[in-house]
Amino acid sequence: MSEPAGELSISQHAFAYQPPPIDGDFFGKHIISVDQFQRRDLDILFQAATSIRKRIRTQDRGLTELCAGKVMASLFFEASTRTDMSFQAAMRRLGGDVIAVSNGVRFSSMYKGENLSDTIRATGCYADVIVLRHPEIGSSYEAGYYLDLLNQRIDNPTVAISGGDGIGEHPTQALLDMFTIFDQKKSLDGLTIALVGDLKHGRTVHSLAKLLAYYDADDVRLCLVAPQSLAMPADICKLVAEHGIHVQQTDDLREIIAQTDVIYWTRIQEERFADESAYSRIKDRFIMTPSLLAQAPADAILMHPLPRKHEMGTRADHDVLDADRRSIYFEQMENGMFVRMALLVKVLRGVYV
Amino acid sequence: MSEPAGELSISQHAFAYQPPPIDGDFFGKHIISVDQFQRRDLDILFQAATSIRKRIRTQDRGLTELCAGKVMASLFFEASTRTDMSFQAAMRRLGGDVIAVSNGVRFSSMYKGENLSDTIRATGCYADVIVLRHPEIGSSYEAGYYLDLLNQRIDNPTVAISGGDGIGEHPTQALLDMFTIFDQKKSLDGLTIALVGDLKHGRTVHSLAKLLAYYDADDVRLCLVAPQSLAMPADICKLVAEHGIHVQQTDDLREIIAQTDVIYWTRIQEERFADESAYSRIKDRFIMTPSLLAQAPADAILMHPLPRKHEMGTRADHDVLDADRRSIYFEQMENGMFVRMALLVKVLRGVYV
Amino acid sequence: MSEPAGELSISQHAFAYQPPPIDGDFFGKHIISVDQFQRRDLDILFQAATSIRKRIRTQDRGLTELCAGKVMASLFFEASTRTDMSFQAAMRRLGGDVIAVSNGVRFSSMYKGENLSDTIRATGCYADVIVLRHPEIGSSYEAGYYLDLLNQRIDNPTVAISGGDGIGEHPTQALLDMFTIFDQKKSLDGLTIALVGDLKHGRTVHSLAKLLAYYDADDVRLCLVAPQSLAMPADICKLVAEHGIHVQQTDDLREIIAQTDVIYWTRIQEERFADESAYSRIKDRFIMTPSLLAQAPADAILMHPLPRKHEMGTRADHDVLDADRRSIYFEQMENGMFVRMALLVKVLRGVYV
Repeated sequence: MSEPAGELSISQHAFAYQPPPIDGDFFGKHIISVDQFQRRDLDILFQAATSIRKRIRTQDRGLTELCAGKVMASLFFEASTRTDMSFQAAMRRLGGDVIAVSNGVRFSSMYKGENLSDTIRATGCYADVIVLRHPEIGSSYEAGYYLDLLNQRIDNPTVAISGGDGIGEHPTQALLDMFTIFDQKKSLDGLTIALVGDLKHGRTVHSLAKLLAYYDADDVRLCLVAPQSLAMPADICKLVAEHGIHVQQTDDLREIIAQTDVIYWTRIQEERFADESAYSRIKDRFIMTPSLLAQAPADAILMHPLPRKHEMGTRADHDVLDADRRSIYFEQMENGMFVRMALLVKVLRGVYV
Repeated sequence: MSEPAGELSISQHAFAYQPPPIDGDFFGKHIISVDQFQRRDLDILFQAATSIRKRIRTQDRGLTELCAGKVMASLFFEASTRTDMSFQAAMRRLGGDVIAVSNGVRFSSMYKGENLSDTIRATGCYADVIVLRHPEIGSSYEAGYYLDLLNQRIDNPTVAISGGDGIGEHPTQALLDMFTIFDQKKSLDGLTIALVGDLKHGRTVHSLAKLLAYYDADDVRLCLVAPQSLAMPADICKLVAEHGIHVQQTDDLREIIAQTDVIYWTRIQEERFADESAYSRIKDRFIMTPSLLAQAPADAILMHPLPRKHEMGTRADHDVLDADRRSIYFEQMENGMFVRMALLVKVLRGVYV
Repeated sequence: MSEPAGELSISQHAFAYQPPPIDGDFFGKHIISVDQFQRRDLDILFQAATSIRKRIRTQDRGLTELCAGKVMASLFFEASTRTDMSFQAAMRRLGGDVIAVSNGVRFSSMYKGENLSDTIRATGCYADVIVLRHPEIGSSYEAGYYLDLLNQRIDNPTVAISGGDGIGEHPTQALLDMFTIFDQKKSLDGLTIALVGDLKHGRTVHSLAKLLAYYDADDVRLCLVAPQSLAMPADICKLVAEHGIHVQQTDDLREIIAQTDVIYWTRIQEERFADESAYSRIKDRFIMTPSLLAQAPADAILMHPLPRKHEMGTRADHDVLDADRRSIYFEQMENGMFVRMALLVKVLRGVYV
């Protein structure tokens, strides 16, 4: 433990800390992993998100009472524009307030040399909820551990919500993805869901696969579409299968697209391949184009966590894809705000009414 | 259209898109160009701005009802401190909320690689109004085009307001300048207005000249004071003349300062000249000093969009100029907040009461 | 006065400007130096801070009425995460709003080339109170001077609060430190207070020493624990002694720790020493460890302005120190928010009820 001070390293506590299961009660609980959620928790959350969306659309000003007087701190150690703005908008629309470092965390003393454990407790002294985005795996676990220590000392307990920790987990992305599928399809029973892209490194697809498993729907088929070298980790495949989901692996979406209800598209980065020729051989199969989407069922949905780059072709392709009713990635993004509103209300108030 | 992804380039739609004329109704309209405004629109806006200022000074808390529950996103791809803070303060004083990327857009994934068209729609999913500052001409047109597409898909329509697009347009600066002249002089009829500095590249003077034309006041005289190589573009001179304004061009303010009601001062950048000697020959004529201001009428006003540098001499000169009642650039800046408040209320609510 | 434009230099006015004594009335007064405070002012402030803390803990929503409709601008020319977030949270919890440059001041036109005197007045046009953090000594004095000039011109007066000016002063840090001692010990009478670390350059210890003097408590003993080359400046020692405080200087805390009620710990930077051997000789005596703290009385308190680095040993040491009830630096940080809330209410409203 005589590590040099002044580094962004995660303490050993991070690896021991287990965030509490939600078990029907969100109040005061850190949101760090999808492993905290069971179907019942998802049902509660999605019901609240649906209600909140309806109230926003009818301009129900009562929403701004739900988190009035509460302060959210936005602590982003790396950029994540959507997650950041989505959480901020969520808190504002609930009547809560947001604080963030004026010059950005990257230029703060926090970034240069302070342990995350101190940073998170300093912020905990001012805020009721901290949204933490940090490049290191385990950072949100560390936040949970040290906030619990602080909360024993300070009267005003503070909750941490992970906004993503490196290539680790990004629970609220998975929650909004699940909500979007649920919202579009009304039920998960009988769905065929294709996850496409780099399934080895993509944390969003890992967490989404887990949530699909925890939801315990009937007769779900999960198609994992990836190059062999970027396949979904075996432990996640096993977990999913244990929950009764039929898993199918392929490296060619065209084989299954005509039978797919949900297409979840992600990017494959060239850097993941040993050489350019390995990348060249597969890349065309992992670019969504209007002609590929044409092969999907009329009621399929095309999802993407965004931002997107070349994995959806040219800008002209984007324009054509965006005009297709099956492309629902902007609705998905909007849902992100509703799900985060539901989450904020639940952890800060316990009840949503 | 096979341009490389990952660049901040403006799509071809930007050049086809025409923002709607205000025509007496601001509700839900993007504010992108002064060309959307006629005299009637300016009258509506300035009346609202005047009323808002009065209510702020009497601490009328009813103002904070006007945009309560609305969210403004501040999307600044380049720094513009005054425009940014002025819009933020405007929204806050109307009871609305503001979101911005915690680390600044420059460090976000948006900046690195995402098309503006996606960025603007992502933001549109969270916000009711987006203030966009972007270094490229046409960016605010592109924002308008793609937000219109998004608004067909998402229930909550989002409005864009340009905070300046490169050397293109900066409509709210021109609106606050016009309001300041109007406010100080009560009427534009019969005024002699001098625009001084780099009239070739200065977007604020272009837009202001256009607004003066669109206002169709009687007997206005516009003195364009610039080095020959930095003269006002011919098409703007023509437009202004067509609206009955008497245009006079000179490169020496001293010829006309004694007959000038409004002096609008801007900076000339050395880089605009082919060689240093060309710059040296003219620069002294384009530095405002206490002795130059002394030659202006007692009821003249000296305006400047700020920030100022050497074009107002030394810091000691600044102090003397600032103490002169004719220098109204800080009042001008304060007016910026009132005009932006009026604009936000009008586009978000339609009515100002 | 023909200095080049475009530098962050402080005008000569800064050195002539004297901020007004509080003298029982905070309303509309810039907060720039602890020299503005007398015991009576501290009593008023601490009473308000205590009341505010109680109301926050009982979730009294009436607090959000106290600064409703007011706007605070956060103008941080250098990073100071805690001061920044603490002020923001303070303003929010009082129902006020906060504006800040979206991309941070460092990247704004303000940073490149504009005089602080213009920046501060521009901001003063939008905000009711400006929290200024700036690397140059005297900057907050300059802010006060120019805001007074602006306030004569603009209807809405603006107050400046220093968030620290370089190695100059950081008055709100000293106020929160004093409040913490007062709050923990109920009275300053009879206390032995040790200030430890670099007492030559540390502005927090300078300001705290002054406030202890101005408070005029009975029978206070101040132990100044520093290497000889980093001793407290003589003028501050003299001031303190003139107010009847018994001053003792040493370079070894162990001599006095057993009789100390308050230990105020700060860092010694290696760069302050001529050579490494000089630093090596003393450094161990200036690292707080669990075994050192064990020698302090059971009711002593250990304070630190944070962030901390090696001056509190390893991360394992941190964990042990943090678990000790005598370590109250997180409570100290939380107090920062309460004291800043009290200050904001007092300067913006005059009364706190």
